[in-house]
Amino acid sequence: MASNLSFVLNKPNDVTFEERPVPKLQHPHDVLVAVNYTGICGSDVHYWLHGAIGHFVVKDPMVLGHESAGTVVEVGSAVKTLKKGDRIALEPGYPCRRCSACLSGHYNLCPDMRFAATPPYDGTLTGFWVAPFDFCYKLPDNVSTQEGALIEPLAVAVHIVKQARIQPGQSVVIMGAGPVGLLCAAVARSFGATKVVSVDIIQSKLDFARSYAATHTYVSQRVSPEENARNLLAVADLPGGADAVIDASGAEPSIQTSLHAVRMGGTYVQGGMGKADINFPIMALCLKEVTARGSFRYGSGDYKLAIDLVAAGKVDVKALVNGVVPFKDAEQAFKKVKEGQVIKILIAGPNEKVEQSVDTSVDNEKLKQAQAVGSTGCC
Amino acid sequence: MASNLSFVLNKPNDVTFEERPVPKLQHPHDVLVAVNYTGICGSDVHYWLHGAIGHFVVKDPMVLGHESAGTVVEVGSAVKTLKKGDRIALEPGYPCRRCSACLSGHYNLCPDMRFAATPPYDGTLTGFWVAPFDFCYKLPDNVSTQEGALIEPLAVAVHIVKQARIQPGQSVVIMGAGPVGLLCAAVARSFGATKVVSVDIIQSKLDFARSYAATHTYVSQRVSPEENARNLLAVADLPGGADAVIDASGAEPSIQTSLHAVRMGGTYVQGGMGKADINFPIMALCLKEVTARGSFRYGSGDYKLAIDLVAAGKVDVKALVNGVVPFKDAEQAFKKVKEGQVIKILIAGPNEKVEQSVDTSVDNEKLKQAQAVGSTGCC
Amino acid sequence: MASNLSFVLNKPNDVTFEERPVPKLQHPHDVLVAVNYTGICGSDVHYWLHGAIGHFVVKDPMVLGHESAGTVVEVGSAVKTLKKGDRIALEPGYPCRRCSACLSGHYNLCPDMRFAATPPYDGTLTGFWVAPFDFCYKLPDNVSTQEGALIEPLAVAVHIVKQARIQPGQSVVIMGAGPVGLLCAAVARSFGATKVVSVDIIQSKLDFARSYAATHTYVSQRVSPEENARNLLAVADLPGGADAVIDASGAEPSIQTSLHAVRMGGTYVQGGMGKADINFPIMALCLKEVTARGSFRYGSGDYKLAIDLVAAGKVDVKALVNGVVPFKDAEQAFKKVKEGQVIKILIAGPNEKVEQSVDTSVDNEKLKQAQAVGSTGCC
Amino acid sequence: MASNLSFVLNKPNDVTFEERPVPKLQHPHDVLVAVNYTGICGSDVHYWLHGAIGHFVVKDPMVLGHESAGTVVEVGSAVKTLKKGDRIALEPGYPCRRCSACLSGHYNLCPDMRFAATPPYDGTLTGFWVAPFDFCYKLPDNVSTQEGALIEPLAVAVHIVKQARIQPGQSVVIMGAGPVGLLCAAVARSFGATKVVSVDIIQSKLDFARSYAATHTYVSQRVSPEENARNLLAVADLPGGADAVIDASGAEPSIQTSLHAVRMGGTYVQGGMGKADINFPIMALCLKEVTARGSFRYGSGDYKLAIDLVAAGKVDVKALVNGVVPFKDAEQAFKKVKEGQVIKILIAGPNEKVEQSVDTSVDNEKLKQAQAVGSTGCC
Repeated sequence: MASNLSFVLNKPNDVTFEERPVPKLQHPHDVLVAVNYTGICGSDVHYWLHGAIGHFVVKDPMVLGHESAGTVVEVGSAVKTLKKGDRIALEPGYPCRRCSACLSGHYNLCPDMRFAATPPYDGTLTGFWVAPFDFCYKLPDNVSTQEGALIEPLAVAVHIVKQARIQPGQSVVIMGAGPVGLLCAAVARSFGATKVVSVDIIQSKLDFARSYAATHTYVSQRVSPEENARNLLAVADLPGGADAVIDASGAEPSIQTSLHAVRMGGTYVQGGMGKADINFPIMALCLKEVTARGSFRYGSGDYKLAIDLVAAGKVDVKALVNGVVPFKDAEQAFKKVKEGQVIKILIAGPNEKVEQSVDTSVDNEKLKQAQAVGSTGCC
Repeated sequence: MASNLSFVLNKPNDVTFEERPVPKLQHPHDVLVAVNYTGICGSDVHYWLHGAIGHFVVKDPMVLGHESAGTVVEVGSAVKTLKKGDRIALEPGYPCRRCSACLSGHYNLCPDMRFAATPPYDGTLTGFWVAPFDFCYKLPDNVSTQEGALIEPLAVAVHIVKQARIQPGQSVVIMGAGPVGLLCAAVARSFGATKVVSVDIIQSKLDFARSYAATHTYVSQRVSPEENARNLLAVADLPGGADAVIDASGAEPSIQTSLHAVRMGGTYVQGGMGKADINFPIMALCLKEVTARGSFRYGSGDYKLAIDLVAAGKVDVKALVNGVVPFKDAEQAFKKVKEGQVIKILIAGPNEKVEQSVDTSVDNEKLKQAQAVGSTGCC
Repeated sequence: MASNLSFVLNKPNDVTFEERPVPKLQHPHDVLVAVNYTGICGSDVHYWLHGAIGHFVVKDPMVLGHESAGTVVEVGSAVKTLKKGDRIALEPGYPCRRCSACLSGHYNLCPDMRFAATPPYDGTLTGFWVAPFDFCYKLPDNVSTQEGALIEPLAVAVHIVKQARIQPGQSVVIMGAGPVGLLCAAVARSFGATKVVSVDIIQSKLDFARSYAATHTYVSQRVSPEENARNLLAVADLPGGADAVIDASGAEPSIQTSLHAVRMGGTYVQGGMGKADINFPIMALCLKEVTARGSFRYGSGDYKLAIDLVAAGKVDVKALVNGVVPFKDAEQAFKKVKEGQVIKILIAGPNEKVEQSVDTSVDNEKLKQAQAVGSTGCC
Repeated sequence: MASNLSFVLNKPNDVTFEERPVPKLQHPHDVLVAVNYTGICGSDVHYWLHGAIGHFVVKDPMVLGHESAGTVVEVGSAVKTLKKGDRIALEPGYPCRRCSACLSGHYNLCPDMRFAATPPYDGTLTGFWVAPFDFCYKLPDNVSTQEGALIEPLAVAVHIVKQARIQPGQSVVIMGAGPVGLLCAAVARSFGATKVVSVDIIQSKLDFARSYAATHTYVSQRVSPEENARNLLAVADLPGGADAVIDASGAEPSIQTSLHAVRMGGTYVQGGMGKADINFPIMALCLKEVTARGSFRYGSGDYKLAIDLVAAGKVDVKALVNGVVPFKDAEQAFKKVKEGQVIKILIAGPNEKVEQSVDTSVDNEKLKQAQAVGSTGCC
């Protein structure tokens, strides 16, 4: 019989496998999903290592994981758009649908959000998962279930790029070439950006970014933010500044550089998490009339667009995956991500047969390119 | 014959009066204006004391002043909407009209802006002034020329409140109760804000703010920004945060508090100038998806709306004026502003007869209220 | 014991009173409300007379009414923001919360909306009503329950004015001076419009509009739309056209005039219902780059703002009410509305004691003003 | 010596060639341009045949043409961004830069616009042309001067698609497969639209559209607008309607169908000119809360983006050109456009040597595809 083995974080650096009961539909609109593949996010690793992110503290054992795709096993009586056997990408946060944020179309800001693997809610590194049908997105035939597990980080990037209001013909600087930064670059291209400058401190990550989606790259230097900004703009021939700058790093110097790299009247989006308080060039924001926006998770339409972009061949998520490991190897997969040996690694569900494993052989060209890629903070 | 006496800053703390030639029309669209009244802005005082603001440095002697109203003396051959004798408010910055900022409706961001009393351009504390006709706004009969001199700071406030996208029914916190903060409060009310919380460190300024436009006030405390934010929100019964927060102070603690006081998905506008770099709660911006915008001077439609608001009785600019001094007393007027003894003081033009002087008697109730009001940084 | 007497439309011109079972809470988020007062909308009258509006056809007996306020009788286990005894305005349409319209903040466009007194759903002219708590809006102490019944048409007007994106200082023309047109005028004023021109074919309605909220009025003439537009713009000294034009009449000549009265780049909103297809000046829309928007019912934030406007004294809804009739006189009330003798009339709930009746005495000044007011089409 | 031969319309159907004086720079910001190539627009043909468009009436002889590219011959003293020999696309309308439309970034709505070949202003079918430098756009090396002459109609399409606010992932229906409709399809694709449905009455035009940019096509039938809408939506599997519908035809049945084909809350843009007044489904606009916008010429940023799209290879304008004729054959070229034998034809400037002529041989496959393409109304 099907297993509901789950990968549980007890406390920092203490994970175990537990066989838990298969969940049941709670509501006529619910769907029961067999989880097939789950990616590892920086936040998963952070909880694993530290047991907390900000004021979210793991007090009781919590199942990890929230970047998943699966297969519909059972649908509630009110579900009309999905049926048993459908392959789906799983949006892992469920808002209240009744607060002013929800009713006004900003459900990602719902104060009563129940988000997978954010304490006290369990995550998706488990065998079976129950979700409302409208947060399960059927995958087209030309999008594999493994790609489906990448829709979550791609939706993060879609949301960030939307917050930047990227228009065709615009120039965009993206700070950080981890998974989210790379996906932001690809999404910005798909939105019509003609210049996409990837910035990082590691040349190999930028080489990958250039082969993946960036039109220009810049290795951040240990100079003042103003000088870094000037230099990176010179690389892309943007003397007046970039139309938009996205920080997907969370690093203080990157954020400072962002404000100096954006043009008069341009837009800067904070999409990476880092220190709560930093030294910030506030007068640059004021005098240039910069619009700054935060970006938090994803909301209305983001999952749908993420799937459309993959289906249309505009964003290649497969290129970011270094391998797939069986469920029993989940902890090793976390270690690889922590060590920055991979961009993305997928963990198969406990009922999934997987032969393939992570490709970390030194001969592998993609891995060499991506070495040390992937430690960038997340959504 | 008419005098073109001008009030000239030679170097920090060194001002003189100079008789300069009356300027001539340069272009068929130009208008020659006799300057009747000019207010003093924090930036004027800053140039007087320090000779520079940021990278704008006074190298050659420069006429001060840019908050002026006057009377049309002569119009160019292409001017159809103004005639000799018309009383006007004077917009003191002239953009190139040809760059992408100008052509896209953001002329305040024109890199070639010629702005009065911003080096190397002379200001309006002079007898006569030439301006393009479309930057001279005819005053309605029910708006006095002295009120006309207040249109400039009111336009600053209008632009800030527009940047905050204030909608009817919203709540707004305004940090700083100097002239711009007070005007922001009044403009926010006229935009339909139902709760307007003025915040300052001086009780007397808040008393005036409450009598002027604020619905609530809060004296900022020496506590953490988070606690200040919680306390000020409690004052106005805004448990989820304010829809918008405007910083009209430029002070680091105020800006920090702003980010903690704004609601999820709300808007924060930086409208006051201060330190170039500050400690900033960037994760609050990110996780709450705050939209932050700078506000710089004023642009398309702002002067017109400022005049409309005064004409319609929605904003009372007269209440901010402590007195009018003759041109010869310009330096003393600057001293009073520097010492914070007044909110706004007007300097009559050199050809203007003025009996009245500044009301600084200790018995004057308004003055007592406003004591120490007025030193807040400006546009 | 409490009665659940209901006012039922069987078929055109055939209404009866029926004692129906008191409804029960269906969901932990539900609230049971005793209906205190209900206004009559043009759509109610239209169903009564014709049994259908467009493709909505009354096939089975249907309770009429949807403009209601009431008192909370019982709350479900998940309701935290309301308690027994709270007086509330009742938003009468319940969306699915799961479609793309709902999730993106446009629940008024939900294809599965269950709207009161829109077949096949019963309306609120009944004793008790069950609604989800987030569609019940607690009335402040200074807003009476009778005023609460006017929140529905006011929310219609709020939504229309929002669709017109009215900004402070703008000019607005409003076609039609029935209840919705009058409320649009008041809301536009509260949004800061400085010129509000009410247009109708009946002078007495315009006299009331002028005393109520309009700054200018114009009696529509039997001339071409272009000439009507020119004339009405002349009345308000708007040579370049109005910033926004709202049609709250649904009448073909009014809509044609609207397009000629709006300025280059201005906005026209269709807020009144009428013929499905009309002769329309499409090239005026094209060459002036007009933005035209439909407005349908109300959505996120509209009820809240409507209540705020009444509580803040910015919109006077009481002035529109000609009287209150007991439940047993519901049919007579419908007749008065049909005959255009009143602007708004309220029907008390079946458990409500009412002495007062409709004021139609010839001596009543307000009634004389309003004579023939009220027949304008609705939301 | 260089000729300034010009192609002059005297009255309907009466054109002549005239040698006119070479124009001189009027202003330090002006540029003198040798006109190299000029396309023919539907409006040129309309003036040629009828002597008027709406209230624009040709009273005095007027040079035709406004879709031009050329080479800089001389620059005024204030011009810094262009130099002799630069190849440029010529934006042919010059606004006043001083009215509220201009100052707010909507110069295409300037009431004092001086637009080439719109009476009383001469057009660009001439040897030399003077323009302000900011309306001359330098062509990148990989964009030919012939392609430069196509930037004008492409800018029309860019403006239309911007008015439609096309977002990545959206579906767009485009009525009309003439030059503007074809370019709208290509631009919509470059904005990220995933479904682009071209609609026309001629199969051969749709075949070309499909090979050019459309993902789906539909031959409009002689059925009701509702049925045409249903059928065309079925073709592209859009049961809920299209996110946006663009009418690039100006034809009454197309406009009617547009309103029925757009989804709830979607956008419809009127981009083609036709009859002043038509029968219009106004209740569809109202009840679906459609946003309708006109589109008139092009404005801030449109030329720049048009050039970017060609330079980036996202829009292929060459594919629309059937040939180039020498200046002396201008009238024959107009005849070919009138007869619908070509999509676009270019007329070389009078100082340009051209061997090539229009390809209208029956063997030419592209021409056969495009037969009868091209008569669609214009901007």
